Amino acid sequence: MDKGRILLSVTGFNPQHWYELLSEQREVVLKPDSATDPTITYAVVWKQPPNILAKLPNLRAIFSIGAGVDHLFNDPGLPDVPIVRVVAENLTRHMTEYVVWRVLDHHRQGALYRAQQQNKLWQEPSQRPAEDIAVGIMGLGQLGRAAAEALLGLGFRVNGWGRTDRPMEGVTTYHGDEGLVPFLNATDILVVLLPHTPATEGIINYDLLRHLRRRNGLDGAVLINAGRGKLQKDADILRALDDGTLKEASLDVFEVEPLPKTSPMWSHPKVFVTPHAAASSDPEHLAPPMLKQMDAFERGEKLEYVVNRAAGY
Amino acid sequence: MDKGRILLSVTGFNPQHWYELLSEQREVVLKPDSATDPTITYAVVWKQPPNILAKLPNLRAIFSIGAGVDHLFNDPGLPDVPIVRVVAENLTRHMTEYVVWRVLDHHRQGALYRAQQQNKLWQEPSQRPAEDIAVGIMGLGQLGRAAAEALLGLGFRVNGWGRTDRPMEGVTTYHGDEGLVPFLNATDILVVLLPHTPATEGIINYDLLRHLRRRNGLDGAVLINAGRGKLQKDADILRALDDGTLKEASLDVFEVEPLPKTSPMWSHPKVFVTPHAAASSDPEHLAPPMLKQMDAFERGEKLEYVVNRAAGY
Repeated sequence: MDKGRILLSVTGFNPQHWYELLSEQREVVLKPDSATDPTITYAVVWKQPPNILAKLPNLRAIFSIGAGVDHLFNDPGLPDVPIVRVVAENLTRHMTEYVVWRVLDHHRQGALYRAQQQNKLWQEPSQRPAEDIAVGIMGLGQLGRAAAEALLGLGFRVNGWGRTDRPMEGVTTYHGDEGLVPFLNATDILVVLLPHTPATEGIINYDLLRHLRRRNGLDGAVLINAGRGKLQKDADILRALDDGTLKEASLDVFEVEPLPKTSPMWSHPKVFVTPHAAASSDPEHLAPPMLKQMDAFERGEKLEYVVNRAAGY
Repeated sequence: MDKGRILLSVTGFNPQHWYELLSEQREVVLKPDSATDPTITYAVVWKQPPNILAKLPNLRAIFSIGAGVDHLFNDPGLPDVPIVRVVAENLTRHMTEYVVWRVLDHHRQGALYRAQQQNKLWQEPSQRPAEDIAVGIMGLGQLGRAAAEALLGLGFRVNGWGRTDRPMEGVTTYHGDEGLVPFLNATDILVVLLPHTPATEGIINYDLLRHLRRRNGLDGAVLINAGRGKLQKDADILRALDDGTLKEASLDVFEVEPLPKTSPMWSHPKVFVTPHAAASSDPEHLAPPMLKQMDAFERGEKLEYVVNRAAGY
């Protein structure tokens, strides 16, 4: 079997780097010759234009750029072929870095120290040990598990929650609707790494946040969202910060992105904003595993990291 | 043999908590009855008054509160009995947290994101992967090794330097005077965890800092000092920051502590100041291992973590 041709279809950024990297091993086109171009075997996509894939007769698989695949499902003409999520060690490491960085900055009171420095204040606040703090991770997939591993190594207690039960050594796991409140009740720092699906849209709302653990000596829980903006209700997070339900938040994602200049998030003293940059998709690291999967698929092996369409991720 | 009596002698903080914890298992006094009080078997000290220990006839060991023991050697009447450094898992974990936190905040460009947020700027800077960054740890003792382990787990490359060769898996080690420049030349982020001795006093000076690696695409090296203030020359660090030799610094210690209000460190935009709080000595975690060592010593076992007086640590 010949090497299948790739359609590279992205919107919102320049595909040049991806084009070069994929072209090293396969023929790549940025547009099909026609709606029924028979030469296209694979599509590598990020927010592809609607219906561009619908009628390609020989399309065998779609590769999503980025760990989330919600951007694909806006296309009403999405054909029924396997969708492969990108999973790269590099992406996982970047996300682990982000999660550990934000957990430590909240745990070690970075905001307090920055304020003290401004006031030239030499004063040591009381500092809890990591083993007194429970980090709860919503979404125990590839990214969540790697972050959990790193946090356990630093001595934190770690809880995990997901749709289904996915046990992990050293982690107290909860699952399903009935597991959510007990999970939140046992969590001081909530890390959100869920996929965006109809079931998870808006899940990070005031009602959820108020179930987070409140303890003597800790002045509110912490929220870190590195998943998707549509998981959260920005207004609910602001309300929780303002009434003390939340102490601080690190948000890499927002309901509307880029975050509008008018959003109160920008200047909120308890919010740390990053521009959906927790784990950027560096094509140098993401293209090679895609090409490897195509080769393996053509040798008759099964595709890995195939999206479960019913679940939406 | 009866349980030896403890002299608890500290200056600069209230010894109440230590007194209570040690008293749970042994008799504790805050002052000897006389200069030659024969009832004192152990001293637990932090910056003890000079000569207070000199003539105690039955003193068998001195336990230092804190990982560094330089504070002890200011006493001209320090008797020739074993000095035990405090080594507690808790202290090591706190230090690892601090080092990982500061390395990640520099690596993940915390200062840049905080400035962008102030300007409501949604913009993703280029981000190097951890495996492109070499963290160099000066001082590969208990604390340095634990920090190295955690950084390796996050994907960083790690170099180590010490007085003597102390190999460690996954770490490129250098030692002695002749190893110092090669170590610095291969290091992007310098983490200082050395003890303060006559040989290390003022070692972090401009001449040393200018040997740190300078690479295309990285705008200067980073310094993190969580060791002792006397290791560094504050003025040299400021010079290195101002001429671009250093990009940023996280300093937990300073030549004079508390850091004087007049120090330019406080308001320097490239310096992050903490008040010698990287790894605080929580008596709840430090007293029990001391008491355990005393019990073991009285059963005839050897003391652990005894200071090498010739080396000064």
